[in-house]
Amino acid sequence: MTEENNKAEKFIVNCIPVNDKDQQRFIEAAGDVRIEFCGDPKNYGDMSVKAQIPKKLRSRATAVLGNFDPAIAHEFTNLEWLQTWSAGVDAYIKPGVLPEGVTVTSATGAYGQSVSEHMIAMMWALMKNLPLYVRDQTAHRWQDEGTVLTPEGATVLVIGTGDIGSHFARLAKGTGMRTVGVRRSADKPADGIDQMHGFDELDTLLPQADVVALSLPKAADTHHLIDAHRLAFLKKDAILVNGGRGDAVDDDALAEALSNNAIRGAGLDVFETEPLPPTHPLWNEPSCLITPHAAGGSHLASNDAHIVDIAVANVRRYANDEPLQDNAHR
Amino acid sequence: MTEENNKAEKFIVNCIPVNDKDQQRFIEAAGDVRIEFCGDPKNYGDMSVKAQIPKKLRSRATAVLGNFDPAIAHEFTNLEWLQTWSAGVDAYIKPGVLPEGVTVTSATGAYGQSVSEHMIAMMWALMKNLPLYVRDQTAHRWQDEGTVLTPEGATVLVIGTGDIGSHFARLAKGTGMRTVGVRRSADKPADGIDQMHGFDELDTLLPQADVVALSLPKAADTHHLIDAHRLAFLKKDAILVNGGRGDAVDDDALAEALSNNAIRGAGLDVFETEPLPPTHPLWNEPSCLITPHAAGGSHLASNDAHIVDIAVANVRRYANDEPLQDNAHR
Repeated sequence: MTEENNKAEKFIVNCIPVNDKDQQRFIEAAGDVRIEFCGDPKNYGDMSVKAQIPKKLRSRATAVLGNFDPAIAHEFTNLEWLQTWSAGVDAYIKPGVLPEGVTVTSATGAYGQSVSEHMIAMMWALMKNLPLYVRDQTAHRWQDEGTVLTPEGATVLVIGTGDIGSHFARLAKGTGMRTVGVRRSADKPADGIDQMHGFDELDTLLPQADVVALSLPKAADTHHLIDAHRLAFLKKDAILVNGGRGDAVDDDALAEALSNNAIRGAGLDVFETEPLPPTHPLWNEPSCLITPHAAGGSHLASNDAHIVDIAVANVRRYANDEPLQDNAHR
Repeated sequence: MTEENNKAEKFIVNCIPVNDKDQQRFIEAAGDVRIEFCGDPKNYGDMSVKAQIPKKLRSRATAVLGNFDPAIAHEFTNLEWLQTWSAGVDAYIKPGVLPEGVTVTSATGAYGQSVSEHMIAMMWALMKNLPLYVRDQTAHRWQDEGTVLTPEGATVLVIGTGDIGSHFARLAKGTGMRTVGVRRSADKPADGIDQMHGFDELDTLLPQADVVALSLPKAADTHHLIDAHRLAFLKKDAILVNGGRGDAVDDDALAEALSNNAIRGAGLDVFETEPLPPTHPLWNEPSCLITPHAAGGSHLASNDAHIVDIAVANVRRYANDEPLQDNAHR
């Protein structure tokens, strides 16, 4: 039968490092479709590595689970589907990287918890002057760093209300904040957001914000969304937190605003250029809290479990010829 | 009439720095009772200063609102009532400080929000390795500091469930934590606490805790409550946060536990000796986050409003011969 023949041709190469229990879930989900495991179990819980795929499997694979080196993408001549373990897929969807017609699904959704928690932690730290106290501590200095802020009753502007933004908004509500969301389609609600607006209203919303939380995916039209012009709309006591894409903020303009005390502080896990160049002025701003794109990744054990859940569900769909699912807000 | 005469004798000296609106509230609450304002308006929002009371008013005052220097306490020969603007009243209730029979009411309740928020901020910072990243930043070092923790699904043991502990528990629940309380009377519930226990169960509760949050008032029987013996009950990944009284923790034992990586981290705003001596080993522990008893005080604008609320309510009771109120859990 033709359908049987089609199914038999499918061949999944799974590079996600799995334990025995995860492996069984993948095998069960794949059904009649052959699935080969290439993940190194010693990398379990570490998806910062590049997937290693034996050369002979590359042209046979119709589906790959995991992030291989984009430089070898042309070798996957039979590829139909790539499931990344990252939230971002920029490196693969650029024209000319993968063969025509390959479906790319990301692990967006796996990092919502860890990235949003990191953003909330940065917000709290800045509100309570903790980065200043750490600096005092390194000098054994018992010194009062003055007034603090509270989230209770404050307004947070959540720009980008996908998985990360929505999770962040729910955590923010738990601190007593009012949550205002900004997304492409203002008529689409999001969990945790009290009030939704479109990007066209951004300039009128910024002056009301006590905190601005950015969790945008990479997109041409959000490049330097927060530039010198928009930073000038913010309150003097405003705090900016970015856990989405680095290029949504003009880092030079932000450094300037912080050095002029035009805003109170910034917590940044992402930057236009990564690693942030050692000479960048942001490094020297005590009111800027810098973390090295560490909010997501494998830093939280539950991220890996989320990635496996996403991949298993798509393997089941692939085996059953159902449409693959991706929650990315591209 | 005798009652009129009694009222006429009362004389309130208010050292709380007030604005015009606060002043009207006090005058209205005092009714027929004379109230003199000694607070320096330029100290508005700063209650770290000692109240300055003109010498001639000291023997006339039957009530004082504010913390004067305990060394001059004997001059208040007609004092019936002292309302402090601090949560602690140790300096005044020691025998021999105030004349016999003076009622002391504290501003306990005014600091619950700010202290509990500070504790939550310290907890988040430690879970997400933020103190390490601040140290990296001072060296312009882009360096991954490894795995992080999440409060979601974690258990926090809240030791002392008064105003601060209860507020902390509510914030902790907003992060997805399970809250277990420890208080003197285990049958008395507290807002935000899922499960209440008595101090006698402490040793069996400590091994279950992902976070231990201390918000105890000073009391002889909580001195070194957390000592080397009890620290040894904690998980290797446990985080200890103290926003209550410093002497509830044996700081030397804690420094030892942190240096042996016996627990993951500690966030301390209070210490056995304050300021923490510059040679104390805690200063050198990167897994210890030190703040200089700055969680309460006047660091959050709303604290002052809470203090005024508490004092106004008691002035009204005093003027009406009603029992004065104090929420202290002494």
